[in-house]
Amino acid sequence: MSEHNRGEREALCQAPVGVFDSGVGGLTVAREIMRNLPEERIVYFGDTARVPYGSKSKDTVIRYSRQIIRFLKTQGVKAIVIACNTASALALEEVEKELDLPILGVLKPGARVAAKTTRNKKIGVIGTESTINSHMYDRFIQAQDPEISVYGKACPLFVPLVEEGWLKDPVTEEVARRYLDELMHQGIDSLILGCTHYPLLRSLLRRITGESVTLVNPAYETAKELESLLKEKGLANPGGGTDGADRYQFFVSDAADKFKHFANSILPYDIETTKKINIEEF
Amino acid sequence: MSEHNRGEREALCQAPVGVFDSGVGGLTVAREIMRNLPEERIVYFGDTARVPYGSKSKDTVIRYSRQIIRFLKTQGVKAIVIACNTASALALEEVEKELDLPILGVLKPGARVAAKTTRNKKIGVIGTESTINSHMYDRFIQAQDPEISVYGKACPLFVPLVEEGWLKDPVTEEVARRYLDELMHQGIDSLILGCTHYPLLRSLLRRITGESVTLVNPAYETAKELESLLKEKGLANPGGGTDGADRYQFFVSDAADKFKHFANSILPYDIETTKKINIEEF
Repeated sequence: MSEHNRGEREALCQAPVGVFDSGVGGLTVAREIMRNLPEERIVYFGDTARVPYGSKSKDTVIRYSRQIIRFLKTQGVKAIVIACNTASALALEEVEKELDLPILGVLKPGARVAAKTTRNKKIGVIGTESTINSHMYDRFIQAQDPEISVYGKACPLFVPLVEEGWLKDPVTEEVARRYLDELMHQGIDSLILGCTHYPLLRSLLRRITGESVTLVNPAYETAKELESLLKEKGLANPGGGTDGADRYQFFVSDAADKFKHFANSILPYDIETTKKINIEEF
Repeated sequence: MSEHNRGEREALCQAPVGVFDSGVGGLTVAREIMRNLPEERIVYFGDTARVPYGSKSKDTVIRYSRQIIRFLKTQGVKAIVIACNTASALALEEVEKELDLPILGVLKPGARVAAKTTRNKKIGVIGTESTINSHMYDRFIQAQDPEISVYGKACPLFVPLVEEGWLKDPVTEEVARRYLDELMHQGIDSLILGCTHYPLLRSLLRRITGESVTLVNPAYETAKELESLLKEKGLANPGGGTDGADRYQFFVSDAADKFKHFANSILPYDIETTKKINIEEF
């Protein structure tokens, strides 16, 4: 490798990873990346103006994802993580064809770990309407093991309940009981939390499923997959570059203050600045 | 009036009224216009790609409203009704300054009828976060009578509960009980249903408020105000123009099929076609 190429490669390794979500939920994925890949810089985009994606059509989610990827590329990212289950289910296959950067979603990592975890080959998946109707989790799980049965259930009230802050509320528990009833009757032994908001309901869901069902949060596995991918491509950040406040940057399409408030309740440190951009221009 | 001008005026009277909302909720307003002004044609736009507006910032709701108004003008509308409480609260004042057409929202008509209805001068208002935080209902009510006390309460779970179809569900009743508790303690005798989805919860809300509280649905009063406005401007449709399927046209920014399904449950006749457009281009 020439001196020049080595310099370029080093600069590329120092570049941030782009992470995007329909809103704040993807911060649960960003948090896992921060914990597991502490040397990596992150540019996070939350599409707070157009949230939620979970009830939108495939066409629209693809169009929005393309705009966001164009924006992230202006920030010089070296790889992209779609930290939104709905966008991973509806847009990843399409956008990865067009992209000259490594990109990954949360579904495959989630499906892989669930397929490893299950003993009775019965896996439940909960998510938004669009994620469940796409049947992409089923596809990825059955690609691991065609004998596994997958039971999906859309839970459209969970996101608004989390955003209302009713994380341990009897109303939320009653809603969850109703949503999970059918899956529990099927005898699942693993349950994928197929929406980035749902890990915030983990303890409430645990009360309903009991200890015998493994709750699978794809966020951790996604961070591990990102680690492998960056190593494989020679893109891992060796560290020693920017630090502190520069390491993580946050952009939103609406209401930066509200985002900051929620972010500070999820992330292990205070977000200082969040920039609002007009995503429709990209 | 010259023959030429008379012809132009007649053509203008035959033009449709533009009605818009963040999604399907505004159909409850369109329905009142259809019932009360049966000669008027309507072009309805539902921003189903970017719904809900209720948690978005003022800037964003203004930007979205401007795009929609530009679209409605391409359809040759003679007047515009903002059938969305949030957009009426956040954007009407701004957009009416820029517009060369008559425009009205749902807040002033709702405020006027509530101010007339109350006997004890205590009015409750329920709506989205953005509508309640704007305090626009308070302003319009107190402009009618400064002695009236207005008690607002944001009810962010009502829209998702309505969209889940849980209109008479015990979960929805428990949520409503919690949201209304404070207003009932204040001794309100009138309650404005300040979001176009809420009339669908009328019978459930009625069980909580009892018969002594008047439930005010701004939709009917908005249709009556539109009637006065069109008469005053000489724009009322004398009838005899297009009929049947041509009378009402529906446009959305996403998932036309889903919209049609919901529309058919609200409107007194079947919507045959709904066109999907890319609203970001306007």
